[in-house]
Amino acid sequence: MTRPPPGHAEPPHPIVLVAMGGHAFMQPGEKGTIEEHEKNAERIASLLMTLVDRKYNLLITHGNGPQVGSLLIQQELARSEVPDMPLDVLVAMTEGSLGYVLQQALLNQLRKRAVRRYVVTVVSQVVVDENDPAFNAPTKPVGPFLTQEEAEKRAAALGWKVKEDAGRGWRRLVPSPRPLKVIQRHSIRDAVRQGHIVIACGGGGIPIKKKANGEYAGAEVVCDKDLTSAVLASDVGAELFIILTAVPQVFASYGKPDQHALGAVTVQELERLVAEGHFAPGSMGPKIEAVLGFLGRGGKRAIITDAEHLPAAIEGRAGTHFIGAI
Amino acid sequence: MTRPPPGHAEPPHPIVLVAMGGHAFMQPGEKGTIEEHEKNAERIASLLMTLVDRKYNLLITHGNGPQVGSLLIQQELARSEVPDMPLDVLVAMTEGSLGYVLQQALLNQLRKRAVRRYVVTVVSQVVVDENDPAFNAPTKPVGPFLTQEEAEKRAAALGWKVKEDAGRGWRRLVPSPRPLKVIQRHSIRDAVRQGHIVIACGGGGIPIKKKANGEYAGAEVVCDKDLTSAVLASDVGAELFIILTAVPQVFASYGKPDQHALGAVTVQELERLVAEGHFAPGSMGPKIEAVLGFLGRGGKRAIITDAEHLPAAIEGRAGTHFIGAI
Repeated sequence: MTRPPPGHAEPPHPIVLVAMGGHAFMQPGEKGTIEEHEKNAERIASLLMTLVDRKYNLLITHGNGPQVGSLLIQQELARSEVPDMPLDVLVAMTEGSLGYVLQQALLNQLRKRAVRRYVVTVVSQVVVDENDPAFNAPTKPVGPFLTQEEAEKRAAALGWKVKEDAGRGWRRLVPSPRPLKVIQRHSIRDAVRQGHIVIACGGGGIPIKKKANGEYAGAEVVCDKDLTSAVLASDVGAELFIILTAVPQVFASYGKPDQHALGAVTVQELERLVAEGHFAPGSMGPKIEAVLGFLGRGGKRAIITDAEHLPAAIEGRAGTHFIGAI
Repeated sequence: MTRPPPGHAEPPHPIVLVAMGGHAFMQPGEKGTIEEHEKNAERIASLLMTLVDRKYNLLITHGNGPQVGSLLIQQELARSEVPDMPLDVLVAMTEGSLGYVLQQALLNQLRKRAVRRYVVTVVSQVVVDENDPAFNAPTKPVGPFLTQEEAEKRAAALGWKVKEDAGRGWRRLVPSPRPLKVIQRHSIRDAVRQGHIVIACGGGGIPIKKKANGEYAGAEVVCDKDLTSAVLASDVGAELFIILTAVPQVFASYGKPDQHALGAVTVQELERLVAEGHFAPGSMGPKIEAVLGFLGRGGKRAIITDAEHLPAAIEGRAGTHFIGAI
């Protein structure tokens, strides 16, 4: 830890990283209008003020699934007029648009409270390994739902892997390799330490890979936003890592007779639960993996809860708490 | 000027702000593919290294006209499937996408030179005054070219102001109010001073206004990117403000028998040339206004030139140089 900058006598405040889903901006049943985005952002910004009130240095990450889906549909319908942009550029677009909507909502909450802090969104690149086995086994559905015929046509023409998705139609699958490091981690860490509220790594970060000549280039993949968030949380030295999801607590034996909500678990208990197969790969699995990664790299505490329970969770009265090193 | 942070004994390097047009990413005749964007970004990033080699702290702004135009066309053709986003959100998207493409190109140039500096794009909001007279007199063409019939239909239905644009068709006009301040100026200044290369205020910044209740909200307008850049240059204490445009030098008496390129002019000479009407409102006018604003607020030097002549201009061997206070 470096000394506080000159003129700042107070010791630095601890950093908390809050990761939220792209659905934080778009509730089930919504169309994704700007009014809906703004209303949802206002609600989440107001809940995040509980962390500002406690003087945390705040770093925020978010998903972008529905928004990248909309951009892919627009590209498809306008292909005759406007050239397609690849997935990495679309992620960059949503980092801009969702970052803006959220930073405006946060700014308005800060002004309402007369808190003189600033909000800044950083367009963030995350490096993946070209030799990651995920490149050979795409798992992440993106873009519009297609008919089986259309999906198979594109699979043949464009080399896509496609899959039927939960009875709602067929979708393209892209690889989801492991995020290794966030290029802008130094700037993000510096800004957070100075007390700026920072939004970064939207959509899991813009995925890039190193080419044979050593240059970086965009990758047509999607990084899991919770895994990227955990890497970033460690890089900036966050003490607390919070994942906001659709449920107030994590369950063990989910859907079975002995189902029970987890209040607080140590790393040791969590590893045992993982080994016993309590967390589904497509849903709670990656979040638990992200938490274990963060705690394994020296993170002190993590919480999984939903936005409504954030204030209570901070008081130890809601959510699932994960306990790492002292 | 604050003292340098602990561990940095060297005095801070001077800050230079470079403003470039959205066409820096898309040359005349190009379609705007990702390959074209990347090739153009690589070229401009390579030219900007002349400033890095000289140890300047570097802040970059850029336009987004062609890219917002593409997004407006995509929205239009996909309106039945995906709700439209307003102009402020589209500007935010291009700050993400163009910031990413440029920061990747800069990163690769830095790596090639083994320079350990970082590049960060900041999603930037710029405040305009709701009572700015520009709101009653839209002047800035945006979006696709339309037939006169279609343009007039929309003008009637949506309250658009439309205008015939240089024989190429009809376009929507939006207001272009004066940029007053950049919300993220403190974070941008801090990051630049720390030596990070910062990209900010893409597209002239995301325009926002203060509502009657004191909250900020997006504005359906476009700020002139050179005027916003000049405001930002002053806010971060830049010593040098460079505008990259399509021509190597500024001309007086442009298109007349006594036309001549300007090498170096003082503030006093420049004010006289402006009063004599040498600079057209739609083209060089706003750039000269931006330069005068910057120098008037204490800026030391400004340069207008094209990207090719940047290295020579830095050596005083090309471009038009504007001389302010010592």
